[in-house]
Amino acid sequence: MNRASFAFVIGLLAVFGRGGSIHAQETPNLAEAYREPAGRILGAALTDVEGWEKLSHLTTQIGNRLSGSTHLEQAIAWAFETMQDEDLENVRRQPVKVPHWVRGNEHAKVVAPVERPLSMLGLGGSVATPPDGITASVVVVGSFDELDALGRERVEGRIVLYAVPWMGYGRTVQYRGNGASRAAALGAVAALVRSATGRSLYTPHTGAMRYADDAPRIPAAAVTVEDAAWMRRMIESGADVRVTLYMEAQTLPDADSANVIAEIRGRERPEEIVVMGGHFDSWDVGQGAHDDGAACMAAWQALAIIKRLGLRPRRTLRVVLWTNEENGLGGGRAYREMVGEAIGDHVAAIEMDGGAERPVGMGFGLDGVEPEDTQNPAYEAAYARLRQIGRLLDVIDAGEVSRGGGGADIGPLMQDGVPWLALRTVGEHYFDWHHTNSDTLDKVDPRDFRRAIALLGVFGYVLADMPDRLVPPGTP
Amino acid sequence: MNRASFAFVIGLLAVFGRGGSIHAQETPNLAEAYREPAGRILGAALTDVEGWEKLSHLTTQIGNRLSGSTHLEQAIAWAFETMQDEDLENVRRQPVKVPHWVRGNEHAKVVAPVERPLSMLGLGGSVATPPDGITASVVVVGSFDELDALGRERVEGRIVLYAVPWMGYGRTVQYRGNGASRAAALGAVAALVRSATGRSLYTPHTGAMRYADDAPRIPAAAVTVEDAAWMRRMIESGADVRVTLYMEAQTLPDADSANVIAEIRGRERPEEIVVMGGHFDSWDVGQGAHDDGAACMAAWQALAIIKRLGLRPRRTLRVVLWTNEENGLGGGRAYREMVGEAIGDHVAAIEMDGGAERPVGMGFGLDGVEPEDTQNPAYEAAYARLRQIGRLLDVIDAGEVSRGGGGADIGPLMQDGVPWLALRTVGEHYFDWHHTNSDTLDKVDPRDFRRAIALLGVFGYVLADMPDRLVPPGTP
Repeated sequence: MNRASFAFVIGLLAVFGRGGSIHAQETPNLAEAYREPAGRILGAALTDVEGWEKLSHLTTQIGNRLSGSTHLEQAIAWAFETMQDEDLENVRRQPVKVPHWVRGNEHAKVVAPVERPLSMLGLGGSVATPPDGITASVVVVGSFDELDALGRERVEGRIVLYAVPWMGYGRTVQYRGNGASRAAALGAVAALVRSATGRSLYTPHTGAMRYADDAPRIPAAAVTVEDAAWMRRMIESGADVRVTLYMEAQTLPDADSANVIAEIRGRERPEEIVVMGGHFDSWDVGQGAHDDGAACMAAWQALAIIKRLGLRPRRTLRVVLWTNEENGLGGGRAYREMVGEAIGDHVAAIEMDGGAERPVGMGFGLDGVEPEDTQNPAYEAAYARLRQIGRLLDVIDAGEVSRGGGGADIGPLMQDGVPWLALRTVGEHYFDWHHTNSDTLDKVDPRDFRRAIALLGVFGYVLADMPDRLVPPGTP
Repeated sequence: MNRASFAFVIGLLAVFGRGGSIHAQETPNLAEAYREPAGRILGAALTDVEGWEKLSHLTTQIGNRLSGSTHLEQAIAWAFETMQDEDLENVRRQPVKVPHWVRGNEHAKVVAPVERPLSMLGLGGSVATPPDGITASVVVVGSFDELDALGRERVEGRIVLYAVPWMGYGRTVQYRGNGASRAAALGAVAALVRSATGRSLYTPHTGAMRYADDAPRIPAAAVTVEDAAWMRRMIESGADVRVTLYMEAQTLPDADSANVIAEIRGRERPEEIVVMGGHFDSWDVGQGAHDDGAACMAAWQALAIIKRLGLRPRRTLRVVLWTNEENGLGGGRAYREMVGEAIGDHVAAIEMDGGAERPVGMGFGLDGVEPEDTQNPAYEAAYARLRQIGRLLDVIDAGEVSRGGGGADIGPLMQDGVPWLALRTVGEHYFDWHHTNSDTLDKVDPRDFRRAIALLGVFGYVLADMPDRLVPPGTP
């Protein structure tokens, strides 16, 4: 605890009544100890305009940022230069090789029993169709079980349509990820997947797919909820629905990209690091506003605010804008490799990758501790500390700390023992916009964005500055 | 009141307690008098499956139904034949000449300072662009006042983008309807309009536009909320945004179409008519499910249920599926002409054209009586009677009768004195889907659709059967 904070604690023991004072004499309550710097961060974040200007620049002037695209490299160059202009410390680009998938022209249409265009987006990683496209009858399934029940006889030579209802992202996305190879294993010539969303206004959702090694590589695309439902009804009424799919998609040699890194060097233990950020890449549609531009800009701006306020935490507070989360996780893996043996000095990893709707707090996890396990001493001690920090965010309804969560970019850190936090939001519409042309700046509420800056700033600062590490070294 | 109903009233005076019994001895409370037939209609409507099958056929097998299209004529032929098969009475097609606008191929893209496709839909009635399209700089306005403030100097030779925020349909739609001519009067070469909606998932909304006589006819198209916001931000940041618009739209000679009419002939006063329905045409996108297929199928099915139940009201209960509401109102006007001098025999006109979300009741209007006027004796007497009928629908939360409303197809009847009712819904998402590819069957909740059948069936039947006319003849 720094001197100014301690003076505040003395004065505030009466204010923070509920059971805080006695405990605070032994182990300072973090909400009390950090009231003053947290107030400065909150005040600056909640009135911030520069963060929004950055997000507006990123989404408006640069746009979406698929790995391998010039847009992503523009964004990386801009962030790198701007961070230097802001006198952030140790600003650098960590080179990362990333996959380079290119969509090319693509279209699909029903050609029988009626002719009708289908709104579609090829899935990331898909191969192309032959130059004349693929025309075949469609067979519709609602699950892998239904596919397997059909068997090779009724799948071979067909296009398989996965008209799978929305069951939440985790359960639904497996059809996007694995549907093509599962269908190809039974002889299908292409796969169409109902977009992974609970709400649609005739909006296709792209996203990554993977080919299994033991099945032919067939093209795969997402169609809208509306067209999936329509084709299903047509087929169920006895129609032989035939579709022509045309895709030019190709995977080029890996491209050069980079994680963008900036920090405020710790004043006492600079080798200890709290890292926070999001992924700078996006899909090649929309503007990558909620996924994950707003997170990158919020983490960056939180750091910029802390720097501008002259706050220098005990440990190093680092922001990373990871590259290539969407189709490879190259950035997160490269970052882990760079950390190397010093992984034990990573005190906490904070990721925001669930959109920038109104934040409610943080999820907290520790490798080897299940969310339902409330008996792990190290976890429980850290959880109590985090809830103290959360009290500083209660005033913007963002102070809830829950068990679990996680993040893709910080996954390699998580699995090697770094305690993690994941920013959580109300989560009302994120998956409506996810991986679509509608993930645009107009969907981000500037107030929610400012609240995210505040949340990242306060948690990042306190975790970097608190006297003890969140979790003792060598745990578990 | 028929004999069975009267017996019920005697038995039920105790059940319908609140202030009904004394009044009922003088003027029967309609909720009490019609409990028995209303219960039969409700029971049949709320368990109906044939109506949904009709709606599914219409949306799945036939699809959208723009005036002049073969789809609309297929729908008309199918309804005409099916109504005859159901032994509905006096089934006929009233010939109507309708406008025949054809969209053709169309596309738009930003060509500078970056190249990016724009999702768009030409507006109904628009002219085409020249074969090479129109390429020009975009000037953005948020209102007609802003347009006029720019003046000819800054509009001439440009494409005007109306980036007008959603202010409800009535206020926003004027930019779609009149924007092209207002811009052309200042020398604009084309008009783009932000889609008239409060929510978007990158979804353009089409709809009718009109050319003024005193301005050049320039092409007009809707763009998405997202692209309108993006272009506005680009322009406000100083960019010269240039767009290429290409449209093949053309207006062909008027086409043959028809209103489809069926009825149950009145047992006592067959010349007196309660008419109800919706419009059978739609825009040339989506499936015209909420707008207005579900209404047509609900009104038709309500009639079919009343017929099947063997209920024959005192007056004639008629269903009309009006043609050409969307771009001409030809069907509504032709119907009024057919009625001619006998307009005084039209006891009530009921229209459903606000989507098939969960119904809450009916709006009620009378020509010359403002919704806020609570002093008109004829209106108040009728309003009290309608509220009695509404009590029969309270059990499905659809019994509210409110002041005002209206309908386009019944407009010519309304203005000539026919009392009108307009089905009202919760109205949560109708304008998200309106005139888009997302107006599809999957957006209709079968339970809400059944409730609409019940609501139309009960109001239609009671209005056709109640001893006195809703409003005395010759009023006002």
